Amino acid sequence: QEFRIRGRLHMDSFFGLSDAEEFSNGFNNRRARLGAGGTINDKWDGRIELDFADESLSANDFRLRGKFGESGRLWIGQFKVPQGLNQLTSSNEITFIERSSISNIIAPARRMGVAFEQGFGDAGFKTMVFGRALGERGIFQTDEDGYHNNMPLGIALRGFYGAPVGEGVFHVGASVVYEDFNDNNGLRLRDRPEARDSRGGAVRLIDVSLPNAENTTKFGLELLFISGAFSIEGEYMQMGVSNVDMDDASFSGYHVQTSYVLTGESRSYSSGAVGGIRPANESGAWEIAARYSVMDLNDDIYLGGKQSTITFALNHYVTNRLRFMANVIYVDIDRGDYDKSPLLGVLRAQYNF
Amino acid sequence: QEFRIRGRLHMDSFFGLSDAEEFSNGFNNRRARLGAGGTINDKWDGRIELDFADESLSANDFRLRGKFGESGRLWIGQFKVPQGLNQLTSSNEITFIERSSISNIIAPARRMGVAFEQGFGDAGFKTMVFGRALGERGIFQTDEDGYHNNMPLGIALRGFYGAPVGEGVFHVGASVVYEDFNDNNGLRLRDRPEARDSRGGAVRLIDVSLPNAENTTKFGLELLFISGAFSIEGEYMQMGVSNVDMDDASFSGYHVQTSYVLTGESRSYSSGAVGGIRPANESGAWEIAARYSVMDLNDDIYLGGKQSTITFALNHYVTNRLRFMANVIYVDIDRGDYDKSPLLGVLRAQYNF
Amino acid sequence: QEFRIRGRLHMDSFFGLSDAEEFSNGFNNRRARLGAGGTINDKWDGRIELDFADESLSANDFRLRGKFGESGRLWIGQFKVPQGLNQLTSSNEITFIERSSISNIIAPARRMGVAFEQGFGDAGFKTMVFGRALGERGIFQTDEDGYHNNMPLGIALRGFYGAPVGEGVFHVGASVVYEDFNDNNGLRLRDRPEARDSRGGAVRLIDVSLPNAENTTKFGLELLFISGAFSIEGEYMQMGVSNVDMDDASFSGYHVQTSYVLTGESRSYSSGAVGGIRPANESGAWEIAARYSVMDLNDDIYLGGKQSTITFALNHYVTNRLRFMANVIYVDIDRGDYDKSPLLGVLRAQYNF
Repeated sequence: QEFRIRGRLHMDSFFGLSDAEEFSNGFNNRRARLGAGGTINDKWDGRIELDFADESLSANDFRLRGKFGESGRLWIGQFKVPQGLNQLTSSNEITFIERSSISNIIAPARRMGVAFEQGFGDAGFKTMVFGRALGERGIFQTDEDGYHNNMPLGIALRGFYGAPVGEGVFHVGASVVYEDFNDNNGLRLRDRPEARDSRGGAVRLIDVSLPNAENTTKFGLELLFISGAFSIEGEYMQMGVSNVDMDDASFSGYHVQTSYVLTGESRSYSSGAVGGIRPANESGAWEIAARYSVMDLNDDIYLGGKQSTITFALNHYVTNRLRFMANVIYVDIDRGDYDKSPLLGVLRAQYNF
Repeated sequence: QEFRIRGRLHMDSFFGLSDAEEFSNGFNNRRARLGAGGTINDKWDGRIELDFADESLSANDFRLRGKFGESGRLWIGQFKVPQGLNQLTSSNEITFIERSSISNIIAPARRMGVAFEQGFGDAGFKTMVFGRALGERGIFQTDEDGYHNNMPLGIALRGFYGAPVGEGVFHVGASVVYEDFNDNNGLRLRDRPEARDSRGGAVRLIDVSLPNAENTTKFGLELLFISGAFSIEGEYMQMGVSNVDMDDASFSGYHVQTSYVLTGESRSYSSGAVGGIRPANESGAWEIAARYSVMDLNDDIYLGGKQSTITFALNHYVTNRLRFMANVIYVDIDRGDYDKSPLLGVLRAQYNF
Repeated sequence: QEFRIRGRLHMDSFFGLSDAEEFSNGFNNRRARLGAGGTINDKWDGRIELDFADESLSANDFRLRGKFGESGRLWIGQFKVPQGLNQLTSSNEITFIERSSISNIIAPARRMGVAFEQGFGDAGFKTMVFGRALGERGIFQTDEDGYHNNMPLGIALRGFYGAPVGEGVFHVGASVVYEDFNDNNGLRLRDRPEARDSRGGAVRLIDVSLPNAENTTKFGLELLFISGAFSIEGEYMQMGVSNVDMDDASFSGYHVQTSYVLTGESRSYSSGAVGGIRPANESGAWEIAARYSVMDLNDDIYLGGKQSTITFALNHYVTNRLRFMANVIYVDIDRGDYDKSPLLGVLRAQYNF
């Protein structure tokens, strides 16, 4: 039995470069995590990890995991719902400072539940039954008799195939998530422009509320090709919302991103998951990357706005646990009479242990 | 000098089986603790442990402890006031998912203070002078001059004798706790029906407020018999409340519980404290248990309700640090016109490190 | 790569000895810190440390640090702004239970930013560009267009020379800090009487608000002489406040303190920083100390009060990581019609790991 301390620190500086009067320039602490992880016996392992970013407390992975059979695993507790390649990539390893908006708005991120995953050579799947998230004790609504309802309940399935191609990999994945809100209606979809200002990211330019949401159905498609120092990744996600006494809604988005490691290292990949870059030399690794990302929250009477961003990135990996990042983000918004096109800059220093 | 990380994770699922419309079905994170413990030199040791259950922060043990003489120990900081065998048993080792209501309502649990304990062979005692709990900076009332009062101050004494009987033990213990509120009046006694729903246990069926409480006196009696795989435990507790300008109040309750380890292991016991079960085989240990628990908050004009519960339990110990638990709880309430008899089910997965 | 857990626990008891009706007697948890620190590679190291004193969460050091050249270091994240010898001494090593009021009111303590330090033999300097503190996302004001401003921005410089004198050291240091509030006006200066009561230190006897502060300029002077078991230390600090549409303000204060280690050990000193006492024998070390401290928040129309204190201290070091402390503090206040002279007593047990 062996548990050890684990954590990460992500410190940012934000600069509004143009058309960015809403944003507050300055420092931001994006993540500060402390926790523990380790093995309980040769079959079971556990992890507890908390985030104290900028002094506010939130729970991340709170889980127990056990091996079942040759290549099966059972998960119990809070962890990420299996949907979205970018969402499922660790924040220590994502190519850009922030994930694409579809990953934040559509993919459900962490929930409490039970999951089972099974590998079959280069392919595999993971399925999960999930409820509310940690800290969401307050979401329960009262029904007509004054009783509080049961928690929302969802089911997720993600499958992938990662074919070896030369010294690289070609990955295709798909996911579907259905969630019934159990009369705990009230859904708000919104995101920041893939950058957070010094107020912790107070500016969100797309935002829609659906007060009578009954259930959602979400689809995701993933494509990834890694060949040596080069990689290209694309994701498309769509969600449908069933509303009580109102029209149904449908929102979708996608991102396409490409990266090239100037020093030649290759992005790691294993069992449907993207990892990081391990510098080959003591002088570290350098990477350039670009992303085009679209999230459309406009649908008929629902006018949440459509956001398109172009991001350019320069990453310096000192070790595989310490890196410096620079992003420039050009943001275009199609929403009502909003007519600005902010140009934003973010710097990051991050390490994990 | 050697400190190491320590923690625990207790993840629950709650199901209202019958007559349970007030309760919200779903997952709950009962405990998620992180901390550190270790030795400072060959005489002194320390511990800091926090609970982040469902993202809410609370302080548990914050203490320094030193050896004095042959078998004496001095405690400084926050730790459990010595009262109640079930209350003093670690939440990692209690037989049922929740402690009995007398343990939650009458025994004072953790407070800041100074304690001294002394062993005499199979017997021993612990005495403590205690004040407020961590996080209770807000309890201080203002007096007639507008000044804030001093903190409540109490004194506790618990003695025990654990006689070896064959390969088992016969334990008898008694405790008394007196607390003066120092004009910080206002006492509320309440508990959940020995089960917590997905809203973190929002439903409490017994509840009484005593706004003019001046001091309390609490008595506890403990009996425990362990013989091989079999154990039986009983506790009785009584508290008297002196009120300003109102009648005094008296509340009492008890629990009786028995457990049998199907795989033959014996519950551990040491120096007045109950420990856990260490599976003898790789296939783990299985235990069945039953408890009858009564807490009476009715006394004359104080009508907090009387709660009686019957709990059946099935526990599977994978290792001595990982177990799965199932409880079914039948609840009977004698309070005003409350005429339901809820039947509740709770499942737990827990580990500690 | 090696990170290990770190932390500290400081538990206090407060007693109002005379003229102290405002204060609440009882226990207080002054600090309870948990975190991790360690090296990332041979050049970079990191630290994350949180304080959970009395169940309230605050962020301390959140930083990354790298070696540059022979004796230069770059700091990124949140850490202490370089100003004030007493402020820069670890709370594990300060001679008295609380720092002097100038250290709390004038020196800026921890902020997010970037710093560079360089040593030159017995001398050295550290300079820092700093912004808001962690947890201060809420300080941003709105301007006339309804936009939130940028964070405050400051610059600090501290230099020192520590001349070896016999087996001791003579240290002289000076610092200057300029901070522009970027229209986030509103400055409140206040402190406790170098003692905290059981409500977490709710009583502050000097207090001034400057709602239109535009920028501050702060100066600090440090003198320290250590010779064997004896040490004497003095600091003077002054701050000027520029206000919008109001008179400028100027506040200043100082402290002089002396300590003598009865068991003969010497206070440690290294590169401009004061360390602790490591007992030479198993029976530990004993130290006596006295301090005179003045903080004047009266200036023309600004009547925050002038506080003078005399503190006597007795410290017992069990090891260099565990000590017991006793302070008696005599407080004199010159403010309006406040005519009390409180005499306060504080006991502390503390350890760190």
